Amino acid sequence: MKKRQIAILGSTGSIGTQALDVIRQHSDTLEVYAMTAHNQVELLIQQAREFMPDTVVIANESKYELLKEALSDLPIKVWAGSDAIAQIVEAEPIDMVLTAMVGYSGLQPTIHAIQAGKAIALANKETLVIAGELITRLAKEHKTLVLPVDSEHSAIFQCLAGEWENPIDKILLTASGGPFRNFSWEQLKHVTKNEALKHPNWNMGAKVTIDSASLMNKGFEMIEAKWLFGVQPEQIQVLVHPQSIIHSMVQFRDMSIKAQLGMPDMRIPIQYALTYPSRFKSNFEPVDFTQFNQLTFEEPDTNRFRNLTFAFEAIRQGGNMPCILNAANEIVVEAFLKDQIGFLEMSEIIEKIMQSGTFVASPAYEDFVETDKETRNKTTVILKTK
Amino acid sequence: MKKRQIAILGSTGSIGTQALDVIRQHSDTLEVYAMTAHNQVELLIQQAREFMPDTVVIANESKYELLKEALSDLPIKVWAGSDAIAQIVEAEPIDMVLTAMVGYSGLQPTIHAIQAGKAIALANKETLVIAGELITRLAKEHKTLVLPVDSEHSAIFQCLAGEWENPIDKILLTASGGPFRNFSWEQLKHVTKNEALKHPNWNMGAKVTIDSASLMNKGFEMIEAKWLFGVQPEQIQVLVHPQSIIHSMVQFRDMSIKAQLGMPDMRIPIQYALTYPSRFKSNFEPVDFTQFNQLTFEEPDTNRFRNLTFAFEAIRQGGNMPCILNAANEIVVEAFLKDQIGFLEMSEIIEKIMQSGTFVASPAYEDFVETDKETRNKTTVILKTK
Repeated sequence: MKKRQIAILGSTGSIGTQALDVIRQHSDTLEVYAMTAHNQVELLIQQAREFMPDTVVIANESKYELLKEALSDLPIKVWAGSDAIAQIVEAEPIDMVLTAMVGYSGLQPTIHAIQAGKAIALANKETLVIAGELITRLAKEHKTLVLPVDSEHSAIFQCLAGEWENPIDKILLTASGGPFRNFSWEQLKHVTKNEALKHPNWNMGAKVTIDSASLMNKGFEMIEAKWLFGVQPEQIQVLVHPQSIIHSMVQFRDMSIKAQLGMPDMRIPIQYALTYPSRFKSNFEPVDFTQFNQLTFEEPDTNRFRNLTFAFEAIRQGGNMPCILNAANEIVVEAFLKDQIGFLEMSEIIEKIMQSGTFVASPAYEDFVETDKETRNKTTVILKTK
Repeated sequence: MKKRQIAILGSTGSIGTQALDVIRQHSDTLEVYAMTAHNQVELLIQQAREFMPDTVVIANESKYELLKEALSDLPIKVWAGSDAIAQIVEAEPIDMVLTAMVGYSGLQPTIHAIQAGKAIALANKETLVIAGELITRLAKEHKTLVLPVDSEHSAIFQCLAGEWENPIDKILLTASGGPFRNFSWEQLKHVTKNEALKHPNWNMGAKVTIDSASLMNKGFEMIEAKWLFGVQPEQIQVLVHPQSIIHSMVQFRDMSIKAQLGMPDMRIPIQYALTYPSRFKSNFEPVDFTQFNQLTFEEPDTNRFRNLTFAFEAIRQGGNMPCILNAANEIVVEAFLKDQIGFLEMSEIIEKIMQSGTFVASPAYEDFVETDKETRNKTTVILKTK
């Protein structure tokens, strides 16, 4: 049997390294054709030596020589720059592209991969947040399969197996609630970067961990769910479920609900996308219900976690508003990680930016590029006045 | 569109009346072709006048004249006797047979319906408990769809939609634990019929309610699951879940679990079977997770609820042993409902009967008839010495 050829965009990140662990366990059926990284050249070298891909790409061009030199004894092609990433995904032998880079940078290569007819294992949720309408339309035109990797969307996708003819009544999008679930407004004001980086259940990259603490991640996931599953925002109910065992649920119109559960281990949804529609046996831990003997639910508090409301408002308005939301968020998260602003200031700035952004009702790709640039500049200016 | 023609065996029971409520809500697509009852002739007359089936059958032949007379102004055929029930299911226009009678009596008409190529909506779990190997083989031979109606097996079946190529790693069969979940051995000795008939979550017939209180129902469901889903007894884990919101779960070999949830309303699984593979909108209540905000799990206590162990032992031995288990259980439940024996005595007698039963390794239909008769006689004799 021909091995499934995979391109991993963002192989040195949290999703990328876990995807490589999955591929390592199933090297009889899965193979890495290309791997790309933003900046972590040392880890990329090590990964390339182990997985022997056809091509590696480093986005940061200043690291090119180092990478090239380190792999010079191997028959691996070495490229650099973000245009090279957008190009490599089009290579003929590639079957599936795992988009696991951070933020806005995922948009362009995802579009290229869809246009080249590659199946997408979508871990970069910002792609759909920014340009859900465009991506969904392109995927339809090119008959491309978009498989969600986010644990919640993988859960929903798994629940929909065999049910595509049955309309969704409601999506129950579960949320751990993050490390600050029970913090008061006053406490939230003073939380530190290190506290925010300690997620109670999931081990993830810095950006998504901060987004989880601020519930922006859940807001983005609402937008992502709208595009992936063709539902209206009103059909998505966010449900705080602190144990992170139920990864999301779908209610059908007969009031029957299907849920997907598992340990909070991203390798399970990553593997499901990489091996879809098969399920492979791996070394993943099963849920022990005598240990996880109490699963609880509560409503999210949108007074303390205002980002959920902003995300809902952004999908409601549509157009380039989710792109504005995303760009502002990327800048304020960076600022928070550099201790330049406090935790609650992130939402305050996002609110201002959304109110003053230039609205484009039916944006094309170029409008997203423009909106992203403009919003980043404006947000940076506001940060400088702090 | 041609309406789906349904035969309801046991229309006056709990499942039967709820099935009629479903059909009432979807009279544009579902139609009752035949309805049968054991003894409740007054209710059968009322149902026949409302649903206007082609044929009605009363098992108790002494009620035939009364039924015939009451429907004499309508173009409804009236039959009587259990052979007539086994015959009517073969009628050409019938698409699906809902087997909702109690106990052993379901076996013969189910076999006839399968041989006539009718889809089966199986609510009579005793059929599979007694003769799972035979029924499964016949269904395969006749390419007959067997759709489970039991909420747990419907849940498992729903979880398997779109997953039939993926092997089951484990079934997590949930159990409410019944009204006596936290009772001590001493308390169990003295429980009354009326206490046992009050199920905390489900509104069901008397026989299955007592079986739920004694956990024999869960034991039967293990056997049923083995035959419906082709798993080994060791792959079935019974999990006490007192809220009865998760109706069961399937773990796949990637340690991903799918669950089906819903309010404890039998109309949901009944409708799923009747309208399969579609899901129809009805007046069913959705789960409100702000109310059911805590789902809990615990291991069953097989020291207090020994029937679970007997059921496991019966599947392990196979042959006619589950038939012996079922017949003994039917007799002791009747005796308990007549206040002839105590709650714990039911298990004691079943244990004795299983130890002294005549074992047949590869029983044919006639062996089941013989085993059932012999076991009932032996159990009745033991009861007389009490």
